[in-house]
Amino acid sequence: MATTLRLKIRGTIDAAAIAEIHGALDEAEATPDCRILVLEGGGDGVFCTGLNLEGAAADDASDGGATFYGLLERFTTTPRAVVAQVDGRAAGGGVGLAAASDFVYASERSAFSLPEALWGLLPCCVLPFLIRRVGFQKAYTMTFSTQPVSASEGERFNLVDAVADDPRALINRLAYRLTKLDESIIADMKQYFRKMWILSDEVEETAVKEFSRLMSTPAVRQRLADYATEKRFPWER
Amino acid sequence: MATTLRLKIRGTIDAAAIAEIHGALDEAEATPDCRILVLEGGGDGVFCTGLNLEGAAADDASDGGATFYGLLERFTTTPRAVVAQVDGRAAGGGVGLAAASDFVYASERSAFSLPEALWGLLPCCVLPFLIRRVGFQKAYTMTFSTQPVSASEGERFNLVDAVADDPRALINRLAYRLTKLDESIIADMKQYFRKMWILSDEVEETAVKEFSRLMSTPAVRQRLADYATEKRFPWER
Amino acid sequence: MATTLRLKIRGTIDAAAIAEIHGALDEAEATPDCRILVLEGGGDGVFCTGLNLEGAAADDASDGGATFYGLLERFTTTPRAVVAQVDGRAAGGGVGLAAASDFVYASERSAFSLPEALWGLLPCCVLPFLIRRVGFQKAYTMTFSTQPVSASEGERFNLVDAVADDPRALINRLAYRLTKLDESIIADMKQYFRKMWILSDEVEETAVKEFSRLMSTPAVRQRLADYATEKRFPWER
Repeated sequence: MATTLRLKIRGTIDAAAIAEIHGALDEAEATPDCRILVLEGGGDGVFCTGLNLEGAAADDASDGGATFYGLLERFTTTPRAVVAQVDGRAAGGGVGLAAASDFVYASERSAFSLPEALWGLLPCCVLPFLIRRVGFQKAYTMTFSTQPVSASEGERFNLVDAVADDPRALINRLAYRLTKLDESIIADMKQYFRKMWILSDEVEETAVKEFSRLMSTPAVRQRLADYATEKRFPWER
Repeated sequence: MATTLRLKIRGTIDAAAIAEIHGALDEAEATPDCRILVLEGGGDGVFCTGLNLEGAAADDASDGGATFYGLLERFTTTPRAVVAQVDGRAAGGGVGLAAASDFVYASERSAFSLPEALWGLLPCCVLPFLIRRVGFQKAYTMTFSTQPVSASEGERFNLVDAVADDPRALINRLAYRLTKLDESIIADMKQYFRKMWILSDEVEETAVKEFSRLMSTPAVRQRLADYATEKRFPWER
Repeated sequence: MATTLRLKIRGTIDAAAIAEIHGALDEAEATPDCRILVLEGGGDGVFCTGLNLEGAAADDASDGGATFYGLLERFTTTPRAVVAQVDGRAAGGGVGLAAASDFVYASERSAFSLPEALWGLLPCCVLPFLIRRVGFQKAYTMTFSTQPVSASEGERFNLVDAVADDPRALINRLAYRLTKLDESIIADMKQYFRKMWILSDEVEETAVKEFSRLMSTPAVRQRLADYATEKRFPWER
């Protein structure tokens, strides 16, 4: 059976978290009989809650869109299956990590939300990947309503491939099937699907520019600063 | 909590009905703390059955496509949430009003149908909005089969966001969430989603031209005239 | 009621099988009151398992993509409803025949799978039609996982319009509705939907070229030769 690598991702996204995931992809790609990289949370009821807010308050994070989009794009080109094993909360960019993964398995207690609009932001880099996974309308509703979606709701509209508190059997079954695939056909398949729908250079440019613009607005900077100093979320105003 | 405005729409679509909806949108946009415009039917088991057939028989209605498309397009750009509260029949353009709305709540007795093909027409202006809401295939099947879809079927494929005989609690909950959103982020969000998929200038032109062409064919003119004089639907032939 | 024509398709796809389906479409189009062509399997638990592997091993089948894509494309332009009545296994190109059909009715025992990746191939010509029917993600998951989907699973994500061991009542009801449609509006409708999404000339060219490229790789040629001589499938290695 093919080797399956695992990475416990950080609970929030910043340059270090992104570098760690790239490192795990490097290792998976350098391991010839590896077919699967599993991303999992830290076991604390959190998969990933998105942007590291303290970091974004301290730095000008407006150029972070390109880096994050680039990571998700790598999921859609690497000759490995990327599996998101979600157990707990996924929010913002954490939903993006799941949406861009090839397979998403989630425990019952998992929940997915896009709270960006409450900050005056949009999940710019998440949306192209989310739309291709769940279709236009559910991505739109999650963004607009900002309300969380449970694992079983998510399964109904393809955000989640299977609800499982212990997905090891699912991952083993997948690994068994993928053992039989050439590495090159996974890469060919991913390239082919990219040509079919939505992940164009134009969409990438739109996503990165809009993220940068929104992150630089005074209202967003103020909310991030308020959070950094008082740990007060915008919806607690 | 944000102000919620309501409009009882007319049961059929003509220039006056479209002007009334624009008027309600004007008022909603001019009311700073308004976040939601709810469109509802007249309480007579009808949400909206689409084109005013007597009117279309009397006039050359072939230029009506641009006006109607423009109204649906405004739903997708206004910095307000447009909610369709459907209680009863929605047909043709009435399905378009629902599909282009941000949120659709429908009572159990509601039904959605696209009977255009029976007239020799197509729901040209409805389809781009319906496809982005329900995906390609369900929009295709509704158009081709001309068969009605119930509220609960519609919920399964995202035509309806929630089935509720009394959606007031849902609307209040939504209003509570949307109170926390800046007006500008709603407009930004809608623009961003328009860039993601399907609502291009080219699609609009295709829709408006094809509606005009079909409305001008002798077969369609004859069916409209027959309806105006004898109240006989084409499927009763 | 409109005339319904039927064709028992061959269990595998080659030039002769494609010619037979074109012949049935010719006949349906030449029959003025015909509205429906039903494609069914041979009653042996197989709808169609895709490419004729012995044939592909013997010939250079790398130019077969254009012919097959052209057939599926004809389904999306013919002024007739094409109905796939699936009773048993549909695999590879057989899934394409179903996906490109206007309506798909499947018996409980039916199953749909895309095993191409196990051969080092991709369902290049199937995917544009499958994506428009089931959306991006399910087409992607079927291709990547190579695992079969049951009729009832397929119904949940629109691969199947209705699960029915005996679909005659469904087909009769459809024929009754379609009797009331002009032939020309079916053609107009299909053209209009083609303009809405995905079936562009560019997508066709991408599909045909990639199929040809993959079919010509030494690994694929070897697997086809192994199958032809030893009836051994690649996943039995």
